[in-house]
Amino acid sequence: MPLFTGVVPPVVTPLTADFGVDWGSFTRTLEHLIGAGVHGLFVLGSTSEVVFHDEPTRRRIVEHAVKVANGRAPVLVGVIDPTTDRVIGHARIAEAAGADAVVVTAPFYTRTNQAETIDHFRYVRTAIDLPVIAYDIPVCVGMKLERATTVALAREGTIAGLKDSSGDDGNLRYVLQDMRNDAGFFGMTGSEIVVDSCLAMGAHGVVPGLANVDPHGYVRLWTLMQAGDHGGARAEQERLCRLFEMVWVSLGRTSAGSAGVGAFKTAMRRLGIIDSNVMARPQRSLNDDEAARIDVILKATGLID
Amino acid sequence: MPLFTGVVPPVVTPLTADFGVDWGSFTRTLEHLIGAGVHGLFVLGSTSEVVFHDEPTRRRIVEHAVKVANGRAPVLVGVIDPTTDRVIGHARIAEAAGADAVVVTAPFYTRTNQAETIDHFRYVRTAIDLPVIAYDIPVCVGMKLERATTVALAREGTIAGLKDSSGDDGNLRYVLQDMRNDAGFFGMTGSEIVVDSCLAMGAHGVVPGLANVDPHGYVRLWTLMQAGDHGGARAEQERLCRLFEMVWVSLGRTSAGSAGVGAFKTAMRRLGIIDSNVMARPQRSLNDDEAARIDVILKATGLID
Amino acid sequence: MPLFTGVVPPVVTPLTADFGVDWGSFTRTLEHLIGAGVHGLFVLGSTSEVVFHDEPTRRRIVEHAVKVANGRAPVLVGVIDPTTDRVIGHARIAEAAGADAVVVTAPFYTRTNQAETIDHFRYVRTAIDLPVIAYDIPVCVGMKLERATTVALAREGTIAGLKDSSGDDGNLRYVLQDMRNDAGFFGMTGSEIVVDSCLAMGAHGVVPGLANVDPHGYVRLWTLMQAGDHGGARAEQERLCRLFEMVWVSLGRTSAGSAGVGAFKTAMRRLGIIDSNVMARPQRSLNDDEAARIDVILKATGLID
Amino acid sequence: MPLFTGVVPPVVTPLTADFGVDWGSFTRTLEHLIGAGVHGLFVLGSTSEVVFHDEPTRRRIVEHAVKVANGRAPVLVGVIDPTTDRVIGHARIAEAAGADAVVVTAPFYTRTNQAETIDHFRYVRTAIDLPVIAYDIPVCVGMKLERATTVALAREGTIAGLKDSSGDDGNLRYVLQDMRNDAGFFGMTGSEIVVDSCLAMGAHGVVPGLANVDPHGYVRLWTLMQAGDHGGARAEQERLCRLFEMVWVSLGRTSAGSAGVGAFKTAMRRLGIIDSNVMARPQRSLNDDEAARIDVILKATGLID
Repeated sequence: MPLFTGVVPPVVTPLTADFGVDWGSFTRTLEHLIGAGVHGLFVLGSTSEVVFHDEPTRRRIVEHAVKVANGRAPVLVGVIDPTTDRVIGHARIAEAAGADAVVVTAPFYTRTNQAETIDHFRYVRTAIDLPVIAYDIPVCVGMKLERATTVALAREGTIAGLKDSSGDDGNLRYVLQDMRNDAGFFGMTGSEIVVDSCLAMGAHGVVPGLANVDPHGYVRLWTLMQAGDHGGARAEQERLCRLFEMVWVSLGRTSAGSAGVGAFKTAMRRLGIIDSNVMARPQRSLNDDEAARIDVILKATGLID
Repeated sequence: MPLFTGVVPPVVTPLTADFGVDWGSFTRTLEHLIGAGVHGLFVLGSTSEVVFHDEPTRRRIVEHAVKVANGRAPVLVGVIDPTTDRVIGHARIAEAAGADAVVVTAPFYTRTNQAETIDHFRYVRTAIDLPVIAYDIPVCVGMKLERATTVALAREGTIAGLKDSSGDDGNLRYVLQDMRNDAGFFGMTGSEIVVDSCLAMGAHGVVPGLANVDPHGYVRLWTLMQAGDHGGARAEQERLCRLFEMVWVSLGRTSAGSAGVGAFKTAMRRLGIIDSNVMARPQRSLNDDEAARIDVILKATGLID
Repeated sequence: MPLFTGVVPPVVTPLTADFGVDWGSFTRTLEHLIGAGVHGLFVLGSTSEVVFHDEPTRRRIVEHAVKVANGRAPVLVGVIDPTTDRVIGHARIAEAAGADAVVVTAPFYTRTNQAETIDHFRYVRTAIDLPVIAYDIPVCVGMKLERATTVALAREGTIAGLKDSSGDDGNLRYVLQDMRNDAGFFGMTGSEIVVDSCLAMGAHGVVPGLANVDPHGYVRLWTLMQAGDHGGARAEQERLCRLFEMVWVSLGRTSAGSAGVGAFKTAMRRLGIIDSNVMARPQRSLNDDEAARIDVILKATGLID
Repeated sequence: MPLFTGVVPPVVTPLTADFGVDWGSFTRTLEHLIGAGVHGLFVLGSTSEVVFHDEPTRRRIVEHAVKVANGRAPVLVGVIDPTTDRVIGHARIAEAAGADAVVVTAPFYTRTNQAETIDHFRYVRTAIDLPVIAYDIPVCVGMKLERATTVALAREGTIAGLKDSSGDDGNLRYVLQDMRNDAGFFGMTGSEIVVDSCLAMGAHGVVPGLANVDPHGYVRLWTLMQAGDHGGARAEQERLCRLFEMVWVSLGRTSAGSAGVGAFKTAMRRLGIIDSNVMARPQRSLNDDEAARIDVILKATGLID
């Protein structure tokens, strides 16, 4: 059986006005997700603004999440930094703090090739006693985990699964087909908008940032697909696609990064889950005008009256 | 007067077999450079494998460089990490350790736009009491510092200068022209192979990784250009271009990153400056066959008999 | 009702040893497709090596296809060249030759923006009395037809439909949702490997180059999806994915373009549909060793014994 | 001796309001350039909007240029279309019309690799009895002519020279060094803004679109560099850099392509050389407000009072 399946949101890290973690809001976010029936929690992913946090803060975030989850959902932890030994440092902290698995990208800033990247995952796997999940996110790290790379790492047991945020669903499909006879492997999509498609082609789960705003929607979508109700799943997915349009509201004034997570935080604030939509420096937070436009989207998709 | 001018090599960080800093080799590298007459030392740049080093190691590298330099050459320090507050953390360490300036890239992994990147430099500048040098290296961070961004930061006094490793020499020229009447500003190229051109268009210095191998060559090139001897400078530059071909020797088997710095380390080992050509994990070091091919280049360019 | 739906293969143009069109093989190709029950024929697309053919040859190809089809399937004609007036020239020829619609890309070589590209489609539409289908293929033309561009052109009636070869299925989904209440519009995917997904999200058809090799497979896939048999469709799609692996057999020795269409031609030769796998100059044709590897794939997917 | 050297402007093609060639303005443009002392004329390049013109128009443009030039300057002719046999068709027309050489890009729309591109140049060279000049313009064709490709073609005699519009001046320098002992080869830069640098590193000429506006400036720059007056050349180059800023005036409203050539045409209209600044469809022409901003630049750089 795959180690993890289902809806595993990359959990937003709520901040205070002075850029510290807002622990109360973080607790409410975790409870909101667990209460909606998600199947796992992915903390310290890109949506968590992971690369903005230093080591001590990351440690506290993991400890807090593990404590709040309290066994109700597994806690996957992103150990994201440019190079191998620094990633191993984060991974050991995550392990000590009670993580159920670590999520590892290819190196970045430095430019490694596929062979060196394979070694990177092997070094990390050897250094800890936790499952390693490969995180394919070329838009952030500048390289794609090729099908052959992922499959080689999976077959030799270095990685337990894949989180695919590359947008290359054809490649994901080939990886899933290649690993079909290896029951332990799982592949999840990082997409918000083609989740039904990816599940239909055999993906074992989904890691949508938008689930911070509407976890019930993604759990419904998952359940409908499990039941083979493709029509119902499509309708739910299309509602979530309309909801996802919030990520373009501030684009231009803010960067793509700020626009996406900033929109999630702004919607979560409106829904009473977190207190502030502050983004880590130097990102811009959404303003009142943008928040009003997000309210319109929340209303149109049934999240507020 | 510009704060820094001339040849400012990005200093290689020699490693031991178990990936620690080889302090003896590092000392010899620094002495080799200072002895050749370089005008400054840039530690913890990309060529230094900066993103492979954790905070304590970076601190010791700066302290060591400052101690060895002992005022004979200014020490510029790369404070390179994905986001603002982590960069500020490195900058404060560099300041405490005696750096003469810090060198800052745009944020990476996260995707900021030009406006957020301007704020990034402002935040760093405000947090420390050292000159800030902008480091434009799109191949590593995924975005270019646009001419308007650099000039705005320079005119308001946030940055004292620019290290341009973008390869866009036309853009560097425009920045130099825009800042012509601001005597304090300096622009340096990170190129190894068009240094004469960049100096001829008004650049104030050069930061070539290859100077680790042949600092005398770059100092000669600088001196010839200062004397207006364009023909002599071109001849020296062309010899250095032939020397630079070492960076393609291992390409394919290793990544571009490993191939470049790995070649410098391999040549420095052959020249007796450092003990080992080990590269930080997960990069591949050059093998004996590749080292032999580099020997041929060193011979053809007069560095060994 | 959408003007066109279903399986509309981009028809390969078989060549003789001296690079002329092999009309006999072309006839057999068209009959092979029509006989398998495809719903339309797209001649002079990228798979047809359209940009290798001059105007007179293109005219004869359209005339031949229209004559062979003889009303059994509509004939869509690619009118692909860099700029507006040259595209209009091709479109008028297609119209005179009996085409049922023309398929138009964004300008290329020149670099137009979205606004100029909108004008491009308007100019073409005004010049002829045939439906215009937008062809989104950034890998060939260097720009993406943005969602807003496609939807604007569709809503004003300039384009009747979209052939999406961009690989951005999320964007295709948004276009389909935006146009949901406009019954006349159709969106087709150019993918070979996520056809079931695209149909499940509402696409009206598929234009797979691989259908030249196995049209029955894509017709089966279409029929299964029309019947709501997602499981059966997935199994058929996965067989076609294994078949599609032929496009990587010669990659490296040949370019991506030669490798894909060259593989289709090589397989069609083996299946007795065409006489030669010659590719237009300067592309490389597949060699005997590569052909043997394609035989293995044909056998594994049930196309030969 | 290299076949061609010096300033060889890519000649703008003036248009009438209905998008035909304005032959009177074209004659004045050619006379303007020849009168300023340019060393060659490059018609049907990217700046000539070559891909907008059909075969008959291209033929007339070459015939017209050859007739006006009348031996006072060699006429180089771009034979630019996506694929080999269509390029050969254009090349034969150019040859018949009296061209002194043809200028050939890599194939485009289709995606060829370096090996296929080498064959492309060989096929073209074999088909005609004129020198072939390689035109490296990745921004338009989507691939770079690698150093090894260019040097192989040059050494075997397939190409007589290179026009480099890639912006990769380091690569140009290596090609020039590799070909140093082959006196027949020439390399020219397509840059407007680093001409002094490229000449200083050994380039044999320059093909600047901006020379349509200010040919005297580029001839002065050439002459100063021939005389070894680097300081004088730099001052002239910097004035031309300020003039070149016209290409960004309309950017955003128009595409990059329209903004550049459109600005040249607008300036030429102001200088009385051509009658209209019309751009070929679907490109946008510059408007009155943009023309006024270009006037300011013309004044600041001494071209109008």
